Order: sequence, then structure tokens, then C-alpha cells
Amino acid sequence: MTLKQKDLLSIQELAASEIATILEAADSFKEVSGRDIKKVPALRGKTIVNLFYEPSTRTRTSFELAAKRLSADVVNISSTSSSATKGESLLDTARNIEAMKSDILIVRHPMAGAPALLAKRLSSSVINAGDGAHEHPTQALLDLYTIKEKKGRIDGLTVVIAGDILHSRVARSNLFGLVAMGARVRLVGPGTMLPPMMGGWLAATAGQVELFTDFDRALEGADVIMMLRLQLERQAGSFFPSVKEYARLYSLTARRAARAKPDVLIMHPGPINRGVEIAPEVADGLSSVILEQVTNGVAIRMAVLYLLSGGGNA
Amino acid sequence: MTLKQKDLLSIQELAASEIATILEAADSFKEVSGRDIKKVPALRGKTIVNLFYEPSTRTRTSFELAAKRLSADVVNISSTSSSATKGESLLDTARNIEAMKSDILIVRHPMAGAPALLAKRLSSSVINAGDGAHEHPTQALLDLYTIKEKKGRIDGLTVVIAGDILHSRVARSNLFGLVAMGARVRLVGPGTMLPPMMGGWLAATAGQVELFTDFDRALEGADVIMMLRLQLERQAGSFFPSVKEYARLYSLTARRAARAKPDVLIMHPGPINRGVEIAPEVADGLSSVILEQVTNGVAIRMAVLYLLSGGGNA
Amino acid sequence: MTLKQKDLLSIQELAASEIATILEAADSFKEVSGRDIKKVPALRGKTIVNLFYEPSTRTRTSFELAAKRLSADVVNISSTSSSATKGESLLDTARNIEAMKSDILIVRHPMAGAPALLAKRLSSSVINAGDGAHEHPTQALLDLYTIKEKKGRIDGLTVVIAGDILHSRVARSNLFGLVAMGARVRLVGPGTMLPPMMGGWLAATAGQVELFTDFDRALEGADVIMMLRLQLERQAGSFFPSVKEYARLYSLTARRAARAKPDVLIMHPGPINRGVEIAPEVADGLSSVILEQVTNGVAIRMAVLYLLSGGGNA
Repeated sequence: MTLKQKDLLSIQELAASEIATILEAADSFKEVSGRDIKKVPALRGKTIVNLFYEPSTRTRTSFELAAKRLSADVVNISSTSSSATKGESLLDTARNIEAMKSDILIVRHPMAGAPALLAKRLSSSVINAGDGAHEHPTQALLDLYTIKEKKGRIDGLTVVIAGDILHSRVARSNLFGLVAMGARVRLVGPGTMLPPMMGGWLAATAGQVELFTDFDRALEGADVIMMLRLQLERQAGSFFPSVKEYARLYSLTARRAARAKPDVLIMHPGPINRGVEIAPEVADGLSSVILEQVTNGVAIRMAVLYLLSGGGNA
Repeated sequence: MTLKQKDLLSIQELAASEIATILEAADSFKEVSGRDIKKVPALRGKTIVNLFYEPSTRTRTSFELAAKRLSADVVNISSTSSSATKGESLLDTARNIEAMKSDILIVRHPMAGAPALLAKRLSSSVINAGDGAHEHPTQALLDLYTIKEKKGRIDGLTVVIAGDILHSRVARSNLFGLVAMGARVRLVGPGTMLPPMMGGWLAATAGQVELFTDFDRALEGADVIMMLRLQLERQAGSFFPSVKEYARLYSLTARRAARAKPDVLIMHPGPINRGVEIAPEVADGLSSVILEQVTNGVAIRMAVLYLLSGGGNA
Repeated sequence: MTLKQKDLLSIQELAASEIATILEAADSFKEVSGRDIKKVPALRGKTIVNLFYEPSTRTRTSFELAAKRLSADVVNISSTSSSATKGESLLDTARNIEAMKSDILIVRHPMAGAPALLAKRLSSSVINAGDGAHEHPTQALLDLYTIKEKKGRIDGLTVVIAGDILHSRVARSNLFGLVAMGARVRLVGPGTMLPPMMGGWLAATAGQVELFTDFDRALEGADVIMMLRLQLERQAGSFFPSVKEYARLYSLTARRAARAKPDVLIMHPGPINRGVEIAPEVADGLSSVILEQVTNGVAIRMAVLYLLSGGGNA
């Protein structure tokens, strides 16, 4: 099993069959993390580099653990410790890492398109671990995996994505993935946080996507609710009057969640703002699969690392 | 050999027999670090996470080396790089790490009780690597190990602990450990840095513990002197008039050390402030076992990691 | 194959035969990094510590990968996370690391002589990874390796080193290495950035070294051009009127490079300031071996780690 691409840059460029290949590979890697000895020799002697220009605990740690459980050597480079402080360009930094014979470069960067730029210029594989408001493909893959695992299918489901759709790479990657896999998607948020339906990146998804500003209406009969993190550190004050006002209209409370199907899945990419975009009793409730998303994240990343390495040493 | 607890949170909650079990296990692990190939496969495929909300070189490095010499996979997360900057709660951060199938979480946190809170809510093991002014159990275990190794016993020894007793987690953990193992303990420091004898946490130790403000008197006939680090960055100016004044009364000089037994052991948890709480010639002198404490720290941490893993894969 | 020294502190103290030994050992380690499984068990169970008091991506990563490809356990300690913030002395920090049974300590420090101080007081091996304006021996070794690999020899070549010679540890280490291996060296830069020919550290190299302030003249017939990084963050404004003025006189442009031999090698230790000390088309041109220097850096560091470990377990 392998992927024909050298890189994983976006969900938008993946075919449904490629997504299915990754989800299938993740199944066997999920089993590895459940073992007493969580380690396989698949990528022994490979060098994987985490190059992070934005802070991150969970994504970096998830990739690091994925690589270690595959027996690869991993090196972490963060923007504060990197040559960024010496003014070196991103491309020069990446070329230097590649010159040390790295096999896979995992890149998080505040600028959309940064990983794609590197992928074009490097011969080693590049994985986009989040680039600006563009994409975060492994997040969408782990979300698709979680839905499929819980619901048995993705095709035909109604999935609500709620929050700051316009600026969210998680929303974009999930949207492309859900549409490719045959789901119907409802995007909901304040008008200032929704993309235009026509002419923008939503155009290609017409027929499967609807926009809402009324959260209650959007939730009617939903199979899955994906809440987005409100980026308090970035948005406050500019796209809505106040956090309190936002929470009143767009927080997922138990009362609101009851509008969805009884067996609804409640998801969140984390870290969650309790009491802002999601009520604590919902985040910790029976319908929540938030921590299972995290568990599946390691499996998805093992699958991606494995497949991009050409199926490893095996 | 194993421990019945899931976690190591404090010395206060350990029975003497459990302390003895850990010290005994450390013996064989100390031998491992003395080998040419310092590595055993005991925890291969286990995932150990260092989650540090306070800066630390020696404790973090000691745990990291202990884990690596047991062949575990280790990930470091420090507060600056963590989701703390995104406002996630400690518990949510820890639950996320656990969801990635970590086996042992090592936590340092400025708030007393933080590791215990996590231990109650997580099913994986938690090790307290220092929590506020509460406890630092692996430090006390390595100190007990060092005393036992050098003196052949702990029972019946007279141990002086000197410095800011009131705010020291090292003092508290050692006090509970020494009392449990049958030593007599003299606590010495300025009156503003001593805990109350009655009604506070000293109450349970009555009969084995004495308080002193006169350092010279406290040292008479001591078998062991444990100096505490003066936390210059925290205390200066509030609990004593000046560092110079403090050093005049509570610095361990060669002249002062001569009041103890000729074969006295001089200990310090580090990092030391040369010329403040300890004179350089004493820190580097023949009675000093400061660096041996550091060596034993790795052995103790290997033992604790091994025992909390249920005796590893073996 | 082994080295008689315990430490690698400077090129100045190495004999030509010792340099040759290291370059030869690097040959086989370069082959390892070219394999599909880039890993040999030579240093399994050894503990290697990167202790960096200055930020660095490439040197730290290069040493880390070198150690991992030799199967050693590696721990990174950087000044911000270290006990430096608690006021501990460098020597005490290093002694503590050694007490944890580290085998090799790799030290970068802003003060010249810091690694040598540690080497004198520790029994474990110390590698200087750059100390102030003193030396950066592994950089010079990888540069010598690259020249030898490309030119087949070092003896008799004319090598230009251009830039801030006076404050450059890279220039110093290369100068001593090139002189030892029989090259002729031309040092070129503004008068304020050149060392005195007599009485200073150049005295011992007399006969093989010439000083220039005219870059064009220095380049005539050169076999190798080593550009130095202009340390914009340190120097601007104090040693030359402006960056623009500096670039006009000392930037390596294609026109200037044409004064050297047609098969000239163009080198730079990185990170490069494009358009300051080197024109982009030169840095990326056919004569440039800048990225091959980076590749060779891992091989040289594997060789040094291996030789200082007494030839490893093999």
C-alpha cells in the first residue's frame, strides 16, 4: 500500500480513493498504539524532522510519537530555537535540513502555502501540519477516520462545522475531505466568519454544502457536529462584539446538541475553550469523541508517515 | 517487584516497606548506568512524557535519561511550548497526552496538588516531579538512597535539614522519608522559614523532629547535613534582611561542618549557590556527596519508572 | 582507529595526521547517511548531551542526527531551559550532567575557552561546538572534508576566506586546519575585521597566510572561496559604515567569483545572508558546495563522536 504523491499538502488535492487508502492503513497502526509494546520497526533508520514555526503541543507531540512508534529518528526544530532568529529564509532552512538526509519534513507555518513551496523545491517528502488559514490535512484525516470508525461510513452523513469557518484551516481541510467522501456539510457561524458561497473556495463543493448563520437551524438532524476552536488570541473584538455574545449564539450547549440526531458525534480539534465554543458537559458528555480524535491522530500520522516512506522497510 | 500504587505523588503516602522496595530496585539500575552499554530493554515500546510547567535542567534530564536507558520513548513538553499559551487547562492537556496512549506522565507544576489532581482523573501513571511547596518525592528517594549507600542504614541517624524549610518541597519530602525510615531530623533556619511544630504538617512526626534557629547547635553530632537551595529569585528581601545576613547565619562553612560527626555526609539537591548557603570548599570537599546524589537520581528514576510500569516487559 | 585526545576543543591543537584520521573515518559514516536505513549500532547505550548556550539550528541538529544514526541516546539542553536561569555556574551544570554518566558533552558557549575549561575538569569527552570568537572545530573539519572530497587534496591549494575574519571562530578553525594540511590561505575583509599579522594568532602561520583588503585581488586564481556569514545582529554599524557599503566591497558576486579558477569551490558555513555577503546566484550556482558542506557535517560529527568514544562498541 502506498501513495502516489511525494507529499501531503492538502486534502483538496486528494482523491477519495487516496483518503480511503490512508484511513485503511491507520487501522493497523491504531492497533499498534493499543499494544503493550507500542513499537514497530517499519521506519527504523529514517529521519523525520518536525519544523514548527507556530507553537503546538498536540500536533507536534502526535507526530513525534507516531514517528517514534515507527522506530524512526525524530528531531524537533521550533521557530524560537531555529535560524529564523538569524534571518535565514524558510527555504534555506529546509534545504539545510534536507542536506542532512532527512526523509520527511513536517512543517507548521503561519503562512498559507509555505509547505507547498518547500515541497516543490525539495526532493524529500513534506507534510503540511497546518499552514495559515489554508489546510491542516492530518487533522481532517483523523476526523474522517473517527467518523468512519463510529458511524461505519461517511457517505450520506450530515456534518455541521461551526465557528470561524473563514479563518480555519481545520474547517477547510474537513470540508474538502467530507465532500470527497460523500457527506453533506453545513457550515455555520457569524456572517463575518463565513466564506462566500460563490466564486471562492466553496464553489467546487456546490450541491453538498450549505451556509448557516443560525446555529439551532443548522443542527437539525445532524449526524456529526464539529466545533472549531475560537482563536481568542487572534479574533477577539474584530469579528464579533464580544466573547460573551459569541458564546450566546454559537456555543454548543446540551440543549442545542439535542436538536441533532440522538446518536450525534460531537468533535473538536482542541485545545478547547470550555464555556466559550463548547459547554463543559458537552465536551465531556457521552456523545463527545474529542479524546478519541486525539488517539486516532497518532494512528493517522503513523499511516501517513508510513505511506509517504513508500511503505517503509517492510 | 512492583508497587501497589498507580502513581508516585508524595513520600508522605508511602510506607517504609514501599520506600525500601524502590531503594532496592535502584541498586540494579545504578549498575546499568555504570556499564559500557547503558541500556536495558525493560520499557521498550512504552511512552513516557515529561510535562514541565517550571524550568528544570537536572530533573527533566534525569528522568529523560532514566527513560531512555530503559529503552522507553520519551517526549518533552514544557510550559512555554505547550497549549498553556492557548489557555487550555492542565487537565485537558494531560487528558490529551493520555489519549495518545502515554504510559507515564511526569509532572512538574508550580501549584501544590497539581499532579495529584491529574492522577485522580487519569488512568495512566503520574509521577510528581515537584509541585509548588508540597513534595518532590524522587528527590527524597535519591537522597535516602545516597544516605543508605554511604552509611549502610538510615534508621537511627541524625539528619539536619537547613534553609528555607517552610517553602521547600525537598525538605518536606525528605522529612517524611527520613521519619518513615527511622531517622531523627533537625530542621534549622530563620524563624520566618520554619513551619509551626504543632497543628501543621509536622504534627505527625512528633518525637522524631526538632526545630532549631541556631545552625551551630543543630549541627552538633549530625550524621548527615542536607542543605537547601536558597531560592534567591523568590525570597530575597521578604524572609530575611539580606543575602549577606542569611549567609552569615546559615551558610555551611568548613568551620561549621566540623561540629557534625567526622564522617558526616554533606548533601544538596542543587543547583547550589556557592558562597550563599554553602561554601565552595564544603560543596567540593571530601564529605560532600552532592554529585553522587545526581548519579543516584538516574537510578532512582529508572527504578520508579520500572516499578510503576508493573515491572516492565520482563 | 582512534584519537589520542579525550576532547575535541580546537583545530589548532590537532596534528595533520589527526585531522587526516578524522577525515578518513568520515568517509565510511557518509556512506551510512546515504543508506536506506541510516543507522549503525556503534554507540548504542552511550549518552551524548548537547549543551547549547547560544541558539543554533544546524549545528545542534547535525550533532543530534549524528548521535542518533550511531544509536546513541541524546539529550538537548539549551540555555533558556537550563539552570542558567537559576544562576548555576557552567562548571556545576556540566559536572551535574557528567554525574548522570554522560559520555560526551557537546558545548556551544559565547565565551572563548568555555569548552576547554570544562574539558580540564571533567573526565568525559568534551566537543567544542563553537566558543565565542575562538574556534568551531567540527565546522573546519567538515570544510576540509568537502575540499578534499571535491579537489582530491588540500595540500597546495589556494583558499580565500572572506568577511569578518577577526571575530570569526569559523575562520580561525579553518585557517589552522588549512595551514596544517598544506594549503595557502588568503584572509580578506575590511581592515577593521582583520587580525594583526604579527604578534597575534597569525604569527604561527607565517609563510602560508596573506592578508588582503581588496577582495578582487584576493580572489585571483583561488581554488576555494570560503565566505563568512556577516553577523548582522552583532556587527552592524560598528566595523563598517553600512551593510550596503559592506556588500558593495565584500559580497561574492558572479562577476567577482570569475576571478578565481574556473573550477573554484564556493563555500559558506551558513546560515547565509542572501545579497549581503553572497549573491543568490552564486550561493545556488554550480560552483557552490554549501549544501554538501551540510551533508558532510553529519558525517564528520559521526566520525568525531565515534573516535572520541574509543571506536565505539565495535
